[in-house]
Amino acid sequence: MAKQERSRRTYEQFLDAAAEEFARYGYSDANLQRVVDRTSLTKGALYGHFARKADLAEALSSHLAALLDELSARGGGWGLAELRSLTVEFAREVEADPRVNAGLRLMLDAAQTEPGVLGRLRWPGRSASRASPDAAAPGEAHPLPAGEPADLALVILMGAYVTASATDRKGLAERVDALWGAVLAASRDEGQAGP
Amino acid sequence: MAKQERSRRTYEQFLDAAAEEFARYGYSDANLQRVVDRTSLTKGALYGHFARKADLAEALSSHLAALLDELSARGGGWGLAELRSLTVEFAREVEADPRVNAGLRLMLDAAQTEPGVLGRLRWPGRSASRASPDAAAPGEAHPLPAGEPADLALVILMGAYVTASATDRKGLAERVDALWGAVLAASRDEGQAGP
Repeated sequence: MAKQERSRRTYEQFLDAAAEEFARYGYSDANLQRVVDRTSLTKGALYGHFARKADLAEALSSHLAALLDELSARGGGWGLAELRSLTVEFAREVEADPRVNAGLRLMLDAAQTEPGVLGRLRWPGRSASRASPDAAAPGEAHPLPAGEPADLALVILMGAYVTASATDRKGLAERVDALWGAVLAASRDEGQAGP
Repeated sequence: MAKQERSRRTYEQFLDAAAEEFARYGYSDANLQRVVDRTSLTKGALYGHFARKADLAEALSSHLAALLDELSARGGGWGLAELRSLTVEFAREVEADPRVNAGLRLMLDAAQTEPGVLGRLRWPGRSASRASPDAAAPGEAHPLPAGEPADLALVILMGAYVTASATDRKGLAERVDALWGAVLAASRDEGQAGP
């Protein structure tokens, strides 16, 4: 196989291994030796593609950003129905693609110390700071107006993610859909006692 | 002042300093020297009360657990109105008490690697595993039935927390209340396009 093709496969193997490592341990506790051990390759081969842990994290974060750009680019009016199907679809991606799961965990971990990280991503209902630097006011992590449908969608998705029962986030899409069901039932149940 | 009183004040100073450090950096990146530097005390004095970083985290986590026990113990039917006021009240505690903020961040950080952490806490609408070990099925982080009002409340609170604009989580209570407003308006807005 051509050298360039071997190099590409090696790159992909390390990215998959890093995704599993970051999704399981987060950025600070991720260990590059464990990333290497998750492959049949050497640490030297890893350094040939990624000099630092930050480079692996950056590649996975870019993978997440690309997915968010793609989903958000569909644009149009972000009504509850669109937000529901979009968050469920995104949750399915998290379950199906360890790189998306890792990218989201890395983003959320980073945002707990540097909330501005959230402002650099595009969310359904707004443009990313990268696209329009004025979209995020200084220190404002997510210019989604508090309590508007797009903000509720972000909160349901991230809240379900960080309270998931497993690090692979299995069941996330089903739970996000059930939460939207609860939202749409809420007005009707208002005032009544919960189960 | 009596030695016992001095010792108690030292303990409280280190706990406050640790709360600021953990709330800002999380567990893995928290630095004990910075904790000491946040006080007028010595590293020796710190070790006199807390031998390890884990001991500081444990004290703050217990502070959070005690608050959750207290809020949940009010019991009664957990209707939407009760869940809304309880989550807003809890969010106010997060804003007002750095120890609660730190405890919550430590809990969420830990839960991303060990989801079972969530199952050991009492949430409005269910008892804690500590109180009744059978409350949390093995591997089940939060026995709140997916999509029921208590689960929606947990997700709104945690989702708003992890997407907050600042590490001191200022504005959390207002946003949580606005999100509940969006939930209760959702059915009426259903099908309409968002802003």
